[in-house]
Amino acid sequence: MDILSSCYLFKGSSPRQIDSLAAISRETSIEKGAWLFQEGDEAEWLYFLVNGSVELLTTIGNDIELPITKLRSSGDCFGTGALVEPFKYSLSARCSEGVGLLSINTANLSELVEKEGDFGMVLMENLAAHYLSRLKEARQELKIHFKILFKAMRF
Amino acid sequence: MDILSSCYLFKGSSPRQIDSLAAISRETSIEKGAWLFQEGDEAEWLYFLVNGSVELLTTIGNDIELPITKLRSSGDCFGTGALVEPFKYSLSARCSEGVGLLSINTANLSELVEKEGDFGMVLMENLAAHYLSRLKEARQELKIHFKILFKAMRF
Repeated sequence: MDILSSCYLFKGSSPRQIDSLAAISRETSIEKGAWLFQEGDEAEWLYFLVNGSVELLTTIGNDIELPITKLRSSGDCFGTGALVEPFKYSLSARCSEGVGLLSINTANLSELVEKEGDFGMVLMENLAAHYLSRLKEARQELKIHFKILFKAMRF
Repeated sequence: MDILSSCYLFKGSSPRQIDSLAAISRETSIEKGAWLFQEGDEAEWLYFLVNGSVELLTTIGNDIELPITKLRSSGDCFGTGALVEPFKYSLSARCSEGVGLLSINTANLSELVEKEGDFGMVLMENLAAHYLSRLKEARQELKIHFKILFKAMRF
């Protein structure tokens, strides 16, 4: 299953493990404008983009939308809040256009992790590296804000 | 070893695993003002605070320091960039006062992970949850900056 094997989460997984993942994944189509989940929702599903595009966003003061990223590539993964405590989505996800998705329920994924020795560790290692990379990006953005602030204070 | 068992990274580890960690950890004392590592350095050591305090910081434009956090509690862990790709420290660490530290070399930690079935997964799961929590904090801080920006634009 190309979609799953191209996802950063499964880097280092065996072809057999990818096959097992494919066996527990569901394919669905969602219409443009639909919300897949809201920030803070209980997270039980992990999603993989097949086609189309999905926006991940948060809101400022309940009304202004702050876009975080737009996923457009086949194999892009989101909803990873379903994999770690407190098992809630950390952003909201909306379909920017009609999308094709694969989804995996985390209860089924946990069963797979229990059966496959090193698979869970590889998965979590990839996830930790992904979050660290996103954290560095967020800090980089904060630095830009501080730079603007410092410049504004000088004049 | 209380220091190690109180660290979020080892939540869910067995007493035997904590003992094995203690066996590969080194205790050191570092003087006030000393740098433990710089952002971007190759990361081979994971650190745990025994006593004293350590600042984690980044710099804006090579000269202005931007403090990220100050660790003061026994068991506080830092240098986790040593655990995930690209295995570089993502912040700089300086001793705010004289500190006592435990340090673990990641080559020794890897050997332990190979011997202990689920230990590596527990470790990575805890690390991913930690990074996600820090990512949420950074996004929260970004929201505050945007709010300030929006207010400034209104007047």
